[in-house]
Amino acid sequence: MDYQKVIDRIHGELLELWGQGKVADYIPALAKVNPRQFGIALITLDGQEFLSGDAGVCFSVQSISKVFTLAMVTRHIGDGIWKAVGREPSGNPFNSLVQLEHEQGFPRNPFINAGALVVTDRLISLYPHPKDAILEFVRGLCGNDDIYYDKEIARSELDHADRNMALAYFMKSFGNIENDVDILLDVYCHQCAISMSCEDLARAFLFLCNRGTNPLNGEQVLTVSQAKRLGALMLTCGFYDESGDFAFRAGLPGKSGVGGGIAAYIPGNLSVTVWSPELNRHGNSLIGMEALERLTTDIGNSIF
Amino acid sequence: MDYQKVIDRIHGELLELWGQGKVADYIPALAKVNPRQFGIALITLDGQEFLSGDAGVCFSVQSISKVFTLAMVTRHIGDGIWKAVGREPSGNPFNSLVQLEHEQGFPRNPFINAGALVVTDRLISLYPHPKDAILEFVRGLCGNDDIYYDKEIARSELDHADRNMALAYFMKSFGNIENDVDILLDVYCHQCAISMSCEDLARAFLFLCNRGTNPLNGEQVLTVSQAKRLGALMLTCGFYDESGDFAFRAGLPGKSGVGGGIAAYIPGNLSVTVWSPELNRHGNSLIGMEALERLTTDIGNSIF
Amino acid sequence: MDYQKVIDRIHGELLELWGQGKVADYIPALAKVNPRQFGIALITLDGQEFLSGDAGVCFSVQSISKVFTLAMVTRHIGDGIWKAVGREPSGNPFNSLVQLEHEQGFPRNPFINAGALVVTDRLISLYPHPKDAILEFVRGLCGNDDIYYDKEIARSELDHADRNMALAYFMKSFGNIENDVDILLDVYCHQCAISMSCEDLARAFLFLCNRGTNPLNGEQVLTVSQAKRLGALMLTCGFYDESGDFAFRAGLPGKSGVGGGIAAYIPGNLSVTVWSPELNRHGNSLIGMEALERLTTDIGNSIF
Amino acid sequence: MDYQKVIDRIHGELLELWGQGKVADYIPALAKVNPRQFGIALITLDGQEFLSGDAGVCFSVQSISKVFTLAMVTRHIGDGIWKAVGREPSGNPFNSLVQLEHEQGFPRNPFINAGALVVTDRLISLYPHPKDAILEFVRGLCGNDDIYYDKEIARSELDHADRNMALAYFMKSFGNIENDVDILLDVYCHQCAISMSCEDLARAFLFLCNRGTNPLNGEQVLTVSQAKRLGALMLTCGFYDESGDFAFRAGLPGKSGVGGGIAAYIPGNLSVTVWSPELNRHGNSLIGMEALERLTTDIGNSIF
Repeated sequence: MDYQKVIDRIHGELLELWGQGKVADYIPALAKVNPRQFGIALITLDGQEFLSGDAGVCFSVQSISKVFTLAMVTRHIGDGIWKAVGREPSGNPFNSLVQLEHEQGFPRNPFINAGALVVTDRLISLYPHPKDAILEFVRGLCGNDDIYYDKEIARSELDHADRNMALAYFMKSFGNIENDVDILLDVYCHQCAISMSCEDLARAFLFLCNRGTNPLNGEQVLTVSQAKRLGALMLTCGFYDESGDFAFRAGLPGKSGVGGGIAAYIPGNLSVTVWSPELNRHGNSLIGMEALERLTTDIGNSIF
Repeated sequence: MDYQKVIDRIHGELLELWGQGKVADYIPALAKVNPRQFGIALITLDGQEFLSGDAGVCFSVQSISKVFTLAMVTRHIGDGIWKAVGREPSGNPFNSLVQLEHEQGFPRNPFINAGALVVTDRLISLYPHPKDAILEFVRGLCGNDDIYYDKEIARSELDHADRNMALAYFMKSFGNIENDVDILLDVYCHQCAISMSCEDLARAFLFLCNRGTNPLNGEQVLTVSQAKRLGALMLTCGFYDESGDFAFRAGLPGKSGVGGGIAAYIPGNLSVTVWSPELNRHGNSLIGMEALERLTTDIGNSIF
Repeated sequence: MDYQKVIDRIHGELLELWGQGKVADYIPALAKVNPRQFGIALITLDGQEFLSGDAGVCFSVQSISKVFTLAMVTRHIGDGIWKAVGREPSGNPFNSLVQLEHEQGFPRNPFINAGALVVTDRLISLYPHPKDAILEFVRGLCGNDDIYYDKEIARSELDHADRNMALAYFMKSFGNIENDVDILLDVYCHQCAISMSCEDLARAFLFLCNRGTNPLNGEQVLTVSQAKRLGALMLTCGFYDESGDFAFRAGLPGKSGVGGGIAAYIPGNLSVTVWSPELNRHGNSLIGMEALERLTTDIGNSIF
Repeated sequence: MDYQKVIDRIHGELLELWGQGKVADYIPALAKVNPRQFGIALITLDGQEFLSGDAGVCFSVQSISKVFTLAMVTRHIGDGIWKAVGREPSGNPFNSLVQLEHEQGFPRNPFINAGALVVTDRLISLYPHPKDAILEFVRGLCGNDDIYYDKEIARSELDHADRNMALAYFMKSFGNIENDVDILLDVYCHQCAISMSCEDLARAFLFLCNRGTNPLNGEQVLTVSQAKRLGALMLTCGFYDESGDFAFRAGLPGKSGVGGGIAAYIPGNLSVTVWSPELNRHGNSLIGMEALERLTTDIGNSIF
C-alpha cells in the first residue's frame, strides 16, 4: 500500500472543503488560528512515517489530551477509576450537565468534559507536580522533549472556564471531586493547551496501536487489556455526540479536539493523525472527519 | 487455537452463575422458559463449527432480529434509512420516550425499540408479505428452512405491547411511521418471536463477519461498506445502555436479545453466539456477557 | 362597578390584536373557524349578566372540559383520584411524555393531556354511559339543555389522535389506565368537542365561584374544600406552561382551551369567560389572556 | 374570629408530629438547631397580633429572604428583572440544573436557587453595599432594628456552597450573571442567614398583605400591581416542587425556607408565619405546612 500517495491525494481533494466549517471561538486565543491549515501524519507499526501538508505544525491538542491523562491514571489505579466515572456513550453534548444531575455527579465517560475533569482530579491526587508529570508523560510517548504548554491558550481557557467551573463544582457537591476546584481547572486548562504536531500525535498514539507497548522504546505503558479497553472507549465515546457517526463512517478508535486535531489508529497496524482547524457543528474537525473516512475506504481497512 | 476446549471450559466455569440473573418476565410466554440453559456456538470463517452445552436448543431471538430487519431494509434503500433513524448510542434504556420527544420522533439508532419499529415500518412498505419475507431472509442466511415464528410468544408480545404501541403512535404523531400501527406491531412482535438456536444464529451472522458476503452460499447480502457500518452500529448500540460497557469488556460487535441470546463476531475471523436466559439489570444475558468477555480474553483477540 | 362599560371598552380596544395569533390547526375541523371572533361574558354571583361581542356564539371548549370531568370524578371518588394523578405544575408543554417517563406513568396534574386522560379513564369506570353523563353534567351546571358534542370536531380529533394515543398507551404500560385505549380516546375526543358559548361557560363556572354550590339551582356540586382545591389547581396548572405567567398577570383561577376560550372567576364575586380563536405560542387565546389581565386591572380585583 | 384560640389549638395538636420530619443537614450550622421548636405568629391588617409557642425565637430565614431581595430589585428595575428570570413553576427540585441547561441559563422563577442568585446578582449591581442594604430593607419592613445576619450560619453556608457555585458559574457561562461569582455567593449566603422570629416575619410580610404599602409606617414598598404579582409568584412557586400541593391544600401565597419557617398571608386580611425546624422530603417545614392547611380550614378562608 502506497500510503504516501493515499494521504497526498486525500489532502489535495479535501482542500476544497475549506470555509465550510468554523474555527472554535469559545476562547479568544483559539479563534486566532489560521483556519486554512491541513496536515496528515500516518505512522505504521513497523516504523514508516508518511506526512502530508501541515503535518509538522504545532496546534492545541485540546480534548485529545484526555487520552493521555486517562492512560496516566489507569496505570496507577487501574479499574479504580471506574468507580468515579462511567464508560457509556453520553448522547449529550460534551459540556452538558443534565446527565450529571440524573446520575448524581457520576459522569458518563472519561471523554466528556465532566469525566475528564474527574480523571484530572485523580491525577492531581496522584502526582505532586501534575503539570510537569503530564508533559513528561507525553514527551515520553512521542520521544520529543520539545513539547510544551501554550501558555497564552492556557490563560485564555482559564479566563473563559465558567462552564467547566460549573461542572467541577457540581460534581464536588456530589463528592466526586477530591481537590480544590481552582487547582483542578488550572491543570485541566493546561492539559488542553498542550501544543503538538500531527507527527508528534501520531507517534504518541503508537502505544495504543501496539497493545499498550510503545514501539519506539519498548516501554509497556498499559497492559494489553488496558489498551484494548482504552481503544473501545475511544471508539464509542471519542467524538462527543458524533461518536456513533464516526464509528459508522470511519470504523476506527480515535479522539478529537476542538483545536481541529483527530488522533486515530488501526490496531496492530498504523496510527494516523489529521488536523484542520475548522469544525463541524458537533465540534469535530470537518476536514479531519472526512479525511479519516476516506482513508479507511481507500485502504480498505477498518476494525470491522 | 483449540476453540472447542476454550468454549467448553468457559461453559463449565460459568454454570456457577446460574441464579444470579433474572429471566425476562415482561411477557408471560417468555417467563416460562427454563432458566438453567446455556449454549455456545462458535463458527470460523473457514467453516469449522464448535458447539457447547445447549447450542442446539431453539430460543426466542427477540432484539437480535433487529439486525436482520435492518440488513433487509439497508439492501433496498441503503442510506435512505438514515433519514428516519439515527446512528448514535442513546444513553437511555431500550424503551425510553424521552430522547424521542427531544428529537421530534427521530430515534437515536435502529437498535433501541423506537428505531427498530421505524426500520420494520419501512420493511412493511417494501414487502407485500413482510412476515414471510423476514423468515425467508433469515432462513437464507443460516441455510436452515426450519426456522419459524413462535406463535405463542408472538401472541403474548402483542397482548403486552402497550409501551411499543406508545412508541409507535408517538413517532406517528411526528410523521415518522408510514403504516398502520396495529399492522406494524403485528410484524414487530413476530420478528421478535423468531425461534433459533445458537448454531443457527452463529451461521446467520457469518455474512457480517465476512464483509457482507455469506460464506455458506457466496451470496453478497450487503456491500463491504454496509457490512462495516452495521458492525459499527452493533458495537456502539447493540446492548442498550450497556453498549459501552460491552465494547469495553469484550471489544466485539454484537447484538443481544431479552430471550438471553447474544450474537457477536470477530471481523474476518469467527462468529459466536451464546445463550442463557437469565438477564442482568440492563436486560442482557448475564452469563452471555461474561462468556464473551472471557472468550476474547482467552483467545487474545478482539477488534482493538 | 359598571361591568358592562368595562367589558365593552376592553372588547373595543383589543380588536386591534386580531391577526397577531394563530388559530389551532392540529386538526382540520378546528382550523376552519373564523378567527375574527371575540366574545366576553361576565356573570356576578348575585345574578347579573354582562355580554359583549360574540358572547353567544358556540365554540369548541376543548381543554376547558377537563374541569368538568375532574369535578365529576372528584364527586365520586374524592381524594382517591390523587393516587393516579398529581397536582404540581408540569413546567412542560401540554402533551409532553418526558415527565411521564421520569415519574413512571403518573401525570403531574389533571390539566395536562396525560392527566386529563387518566381522569376520563376513571370517569369511564364510574359511568356506564360516560358521553351521556358528561353532557348531562354540563347541561345541569349552566342550565342549558341545548349543549351538544360537535360531531365533526370529535371525529377530526379522533383522526388525529396519535399523540394522545401514545400518552394513553404509555400510561397503560405503567398500569395507570384501566379501560381500553380506543374507548378512552373516543370519550376524550368527545369531551373536547363540547360546543358552548361564553355565556354558557360563565354560568357553568359559577359553582366554583360560589364555593361548590351552583347558585342557579342551589345544588351542591362539590364541597367547599373540593371547590377551593379545584380553584388552586386552575391557578397553578390551568394554562399549560403559561400558568405561572397568567397567575402573575391576571391573578385568577382559570382554564383555557385551544378552541380559544378561557373560563375564569374571582371567588365569591364573579365568573367571566372570554373567547377569541387566535392562540399565542403557548396555545392560549392571545386576546383572551390580554382581556383578563385588563379586566382584573380595571376592576382592581384579583385574588392577591 | 378568636385567632388566639385557633392558633393555640393548632399548636397543641401538631406537637405530636415532632420526630416525623428531618432538620436540614446540608450545612453543619443548621443541623445543630433544636428540632423541638414550633412557633406561630398571626398579625391582622388592623394591627392585632397573636403569638403561640416559640413565636419570638429567632431562626434562619433561608429562602424566605428571596422575597425580600426580589422586592428590592423590583422596586428599582420593575419588569426589567423578567428579562433575566422567568415566572413559571419549575417542576424540579430547588437546586436543579437540568431546566437551566434546556433554557440556556434562564432560570424558571426567582424562588428556585438559580433564579434567586440572578436576583441577588442584580441587587449587587444596584447597591454599593448590598449586605447592608438588605438588612436595612428588612429592618424597615418589620420595624425592628435588631435584625442581623447569623455569621456562623453564613460562614457554614459558604463552606458548603458547591452546588450554588455550580449554578452561578453555569449561568455566568450563558452571560446571565453580571458580578464576580465569589462576591455573589458571599451576599447570597448572608441573605439566607438572616435571623428573624415568627413575629418579625409576620410583620415583614404585612406590606404584601396590604397591596404593597407597609401598614406599620405607611410607606409604599411596591405598587399595587407589583404586590399582586409577587403574591402570584409565591402561590405558584413558593414551595419548590411542592408549590402546587401547598396551593391545593392551604390556598395561600407563601414562602418557605429550609430553616423551617413559612411566611404566608391572606390578601387584605392577615399575615401569618409558622416555624418548626423539621422538614418533609420536599424541604418544607412538615409541621408548618400542616399548620397552615389547618388554619385556612379552621378560619374558613383562603384566596379561593
